[in-house]
Amino acid sequence: MMGNMVTFFTNKVILEILEKYKPIWSLDHSLAVLGWDSETYMPEEGVEERSISVSQLTLLKQKLLTDPSFISLVDKASDERDLNDYEKGVIRVLMRSIKVYRQLPPKLVEELTKTSEEAKVVWRRSRLENNFQTFQPYLEKIVSLLREAADYLGYKAHPYDALLDLYEEDLTSRDVDKVFDIITPVTKNVLSKILDEKLFSQSHPLEKVSYDVEAMKKVNKIVIEKFGYDPKRFRMDISTHPFTIGLGIRDVRITTRYEGKDFKTSLFSTIHEYGHALYELQNNEAFISTPLASGISLGIHESQSRFWENVIGRSKSFCKVVYPMLKDNLSLVPQYSWEDIYYYFNTVKPSLIRVDSDEVTYNFHILLRYRLEKGLISGEINVSDLPDLWCSAMNEYLGMRPKTHSEGVLQDIHWSQASFGYFPTYTLGNIISAQIRHYVIKELPDFNEHILNMNFTPVKVWLREKVHRWGSTYNPKMLLEKMFGEELNPEHFTTYLREKYLK
Amino acid sequence: MMGNMVTFFTNKVILEILEKYKPIWSLDHSLAVLGWDSETYMPEEGVEERSISVSQLTLLKQKLLTDPSFISLVDKASDERDLNDYEKGVIRVLMRSIKVYRQLPPKLVEELTKTSEEAKVVWRRSRLENNFQTFQPYLEKIVSLLREAADYLGYKAHPYDALLDLYEEDLTSRDVDKVFDIITPVTKNVLSKILDEKLFSQSHPLEKVSYDVEAMKKVNKIVIEKFGYDPKRFRMDISTHPFTIGLGIRDVRITTRYEGKDFKTSLFSTIHEYGHALYELQNNEAFISTPLASGISLGIHESQSRFWENVIGRSKSFCKVVYPMLKDNLSLVPQYSWEDIYYYFNTVKPSLIRVDSDEVTYNFHILLRYRLEKGLISGEINVSDLPDLWCSAMNEYLGMRPKTHSEGVLQDIHWSQASFGYFPTYTLGNIISAQIRHYVIKELPDFNEHILNMNFTPVKVWLREKVHRWGSTYNPKMLLEKMFGEELNPEHFTTYLREKYLK
Repeated sequence: MMGNMVTFFTNKVILEILEKYKPIWSLDHSLAVLGWDSETYMPEEGVEERSISVSQLTLLKQKLLTDPSFISLVDKASDERDLNDYEKGVIRVLMRSIKVYRQLPPKLVEELTKTSEEAKVVWRRSRLENNFQTFQPYLEKIVSLLREAADYLGYKAHPYDALLDLYEEDLTSRDVDKVFDIITPVTKNVLSKILDEKLFSQSHPLEKVSYDVEAMKKVNKIVIEKFGYDPKRFRMDISTHPFTIGLGIRDVRITTRYEGKDFKTSLFSTIHEYGHALYELQNNEAFISTPLASGISLGIHESQSRFWENVIGRSKSFCKVVYPMLKDNLSLVPQYSWEDIYYYFNTVKPSLIRVDSDEVTYNFHILLRYRLEKGLISGEINVSDLPDLWCSAMNEYLGMRPKTHSEGVLQDIHWSQASFGYFPTYTLGNIISAQIRHYVIKELPDFNEHILNMNFTPVKVWLREKVHRWGSTYNPKMLLEKMFGEELNPEHFTTYLREKYLK
Repeated sequence: MMGNMVTFFTNKVILEILEKYKPIWSLDHSLAVLGWDSETYMPEEGVEERSISVSQLTLLKQKLLTDPSFISLVDKASDERDLNDYEKGVIRVLMRSIKVYRQLPPKLVEELTKTSEEAKVVWRRSRLENNFQTFQPYLEKIVSLLREAADYLGYKAHPYDALLDLYEEDLTSRDVDKVFDIITPVTKNVLSKILDEKLFSQSHPLEKVSYDVEAMKKVNKIVIEKFGYDPKRFRMDISTHPFTIGLGIRDVRITTRYEGKDFKTSLFSTIHEYGHALYELQNNEAFISTPLASGISLGIHESQSRFWENVIGRSKSFCKVVYPMLKDNLSLVPQYSWEDIYYYFNTVKPSLIRVDSDEVTYNFHILLRYRLEKGLISGEINVSDLPDLWCSAMNEYLGMRPKTHSEGVLQDIHWSQASFGYFPTYTLGNIISAQIRHYVIKELPDFNEHILNMNFTPVKVWLREKVHRWGSTYNPKMLLEKMFGEELNPEHFTTYLREKYLK
C-alpha cells in the first residue's frame, strides 16, 4: 500500500498531514462500526453505553481536527505550490471539516445537538399521536439555532445555502431552483399523461401479496451476485431502515429490509444500497485512511444508488433477465409475465408519503420540503404555518391533501435531527443518475446488451473510472465537469422520464 | 443512572476523574466492538484498515491515560481521606494502568508489539510445518524483551512475578507454587485411580458422531435460556475460538463454535462463555463508564466460566435435567441414558493437547507451561531447550510424549503473543471455581435441588452478591478474603476432585 501512496501523495507536508490524520480516520472508522452495530446486532439496552461512546469519540475527533498544530499544518500545506489534484483534495476536504468547527461556536453546536436529541424523541411521539403542537416548539428552536448557524457559517446569496453546503459542497439554492424550474413542468406533464392515458398502472396485485422471507433473501443475494461484488470486502445484513456504510475501502456493508409483502420494496432497497456500496468499494485503495477515502457528497452518492435502482433495476432489459430468477424462487411470480413484473416495478401513483413514491412523483416531495425549508431559514415562513403550507403544496403538486399530520408534515425524521439542506440531495441524485445514464449510453453503446447479458463489468468499470476512483478528490461540481465536460444538467432527467414513460 | 452514581462516588476529585475517564472508557468500548466485529462479521479483507484503527485507538487511549493533568488528578485523589471502597478501587485500577505506561519505555513496548506481531505469523507457519527452529529466534527475542520488561516493572522475589501481575493483580510465583504443591500430588493420585480402576472411561462413542448444527444451536439456546439472561442485554454468535466480550454492563456478547461432531465441545463452550458473560452482566450498573465497569482479573473471570462449565454443567444433577433437552433435539442422544451422557461429559483421558483435556488432567498442562515460562524469564532455561523439556515434562505428568512439535511446544498461541504469565490464571480459575462451589453449597444447602429444578436464580443471586456486583472494586486477593473470609485455598479443588471422581 505504501508503494501506492507514494505515487499519489508526494508533498512532504501532505505526507505529514496524512500521518496525523490516521487517528482521525480511525475514530471515523470506529464510529462507523459502532453505527453499523447499533442498527444491526446491538442488544436493545446497549444503547445508553453506546451513546456515551459515540459522543465521546465525536468529541475526540473534533479535538484532533481543531488541534492548533494540525490546523497550522493544513494552512501551511494550502500555501504549497505544485500540489497534485489528490493533494489539493486532501487540503480541501480538511479545510471544510475544520471550517465548521472553527466558525460555529461550541455552545451553539452543543445546543443544537441537545435540542435535536430531544426533538427526535418528541417527534416520534408526535407522529404517533398525530400532534403537531407538541413538536412545534422543538422545531422552532431548531430553526432558530440553524438560522444562527447559517450566519456563522456565512453565505453569498441566501442563508439556506450555508446549510446546503454542509451536505453538498458548493451547492446553492440558485442551483436547486434551476433544477426544479426545469424538471417540475416536464414532470407534471409526464405525470398527467401517464395518469390520463393509463400508460402505467397506479397499483399492482403483487403489492398486497406476502412473500417468503427466506426465498426473498435468496433472490436479493442472487441479484447482487450477478451485479458482482467481492465477498471478502462486502456483507449484507438486515435493518429497519436500509443503509450502506463504508467502514473502509475494503469493508463496505449494506442492509436491506424484509417487510413480508410487496417484494419489490426489498429488492429495490437491496439494489439501491448496492449502488451506494459500489461507490465506496471502487474507490482508490491508495486513499485508505486518508481524507479522500470515501464518496464525495450525498448527491453524488445518491446518483450511484439511483442509477442502479432506477436506470438499471427498473429498466425493461433488467426485468427480462431478472424475471427467471424471481420465477425460480418466489412462488407468487410464475403467474405473471416478465412484462407484468416490469409494470409492477414501475407503478406510478401520487402518494402522500415520500418514501413510498415512484421515480416520477418523488421530486415533488423534495420540492415541497425544499421550499418550506428555505422559507423557514430565511424567516419568510413560520413553523406554525407549516401544516397548512404542507397541505396546499401537496394539493398543488400531486392533487391530494394529507388528512393527518402524520402522513403530512410529521412524516420525515430529518427536521427533528436538524438536517435542513439534506432533502435536495435526493433530487440531485435523481438528476445526476439520469445524466450518468446519458453518458453511459453514449460511451458504452452496448449498455443495454450488457444488461440483457447480465454483464455488468463494463458499466462498473465505467463508473469506477469516471466517478468512484476519485473518492473525495474533487468537489461535486468539479467532478461533474471532469466526468461529462458539463455541469449539473437536469435536461437528461426530463429526457429520461419522457423516453421511459411516454414512448 | 446519575442517582446511582452519587451513592457510590461522592468525592469531588473522584467525580472529576470519572468525567475525564469517559473518553478512555469509550475508546475501550470501541476497541471491544471492533474486536467483536473482527471475530464475527468483518469481511476478510477489512483486516488491514481494522488494524490501523485498533492501533490508533490504542495510542489515543494511552495518550489520555498518561496525560500529565490526568495523572496528577489521580495522584491527588490517592491522597484524599475518607474515600470509600469504590473510590479506592477507581484509584487502584487507574494507578495500575498508568504504572505500566510509566514504567515501560515506549521503545520497549513498540518492539514487543512489533516482535509479537511477526512472531504470531511465524508461529502459525511453524506449527503447520512442525518446525520449531523457524519460531525459535522470535521466541528468544520475546523472552529477552520480557525479561527487560520485568526489570522495568519491578518485582520482589522473582522477575516472573512482574509478568504474572499483568494478568492477575498481586499474584506471585510463590502463590502459584503453593497451588501446584497442593493439587499436583492429589491430582496424580486421583488420575491413576481413575485410570487403574476404570472409574471414568477414556472415550465415548459420541465423540466421533456428527451432529446437526441447527439442532445444536437450538440446544445451546435452550440451555442458556434455562440458566437465564436478558435478551435485551446479551447475544450469542459464532466464532472459531469462543469468547466473551463485555461491551458494557448492558451489552455482553458470547460466541460459541460448531465443529460438527462431539457435541459436548459446543455445549460446554457455550456454558463456559455464559459463566464469563454473567460476571459482566451482573456488575453494578452504577459502574457504567467507570474503571470498575468490568470483572477484576483473568483468574476470577475463569472461576466464573469454570463454575458454570464444570461444577454445574458436568454435574450429575445437571446431566439429569439437560438430558431431556438433548434427547428432544439431537437424534443421536435417545439411544443413550442420562448416565451415559454424564460419562460422555466426563471422560478422563491424558491428552497431549491442553484444549482437549478434561478437568482432572488440565492443570498438568498449566504446570508444565508455568515451569517453563518461569525458567525462561529467570534465565535458567534456554529457548532452544524447550522442545526437550516439554517432552520430558509431559512424560513426567501424563506419561506420554508428543511425537511432533505441533502437538508439543508449538500448540499454543500465547507465547507468540508475548503472553507470559497468562497460563497460571487458568489453573487459578479452576481452583477458585471449586472454592466457590464449597461456599455455595455451604450457604445454599439446596444448591443441588435448585439444579434439579432448573432454578438457577439462587446461585446467580449468590454470585452477584459475592462476586459480580463488585466489578473491579477489589483486587482478586481482597475479593477472595471478602467473599469467603479465606485466601486462595486449593484444598477445595482437591476435595472436589476426590468427591466427584473417587466416590
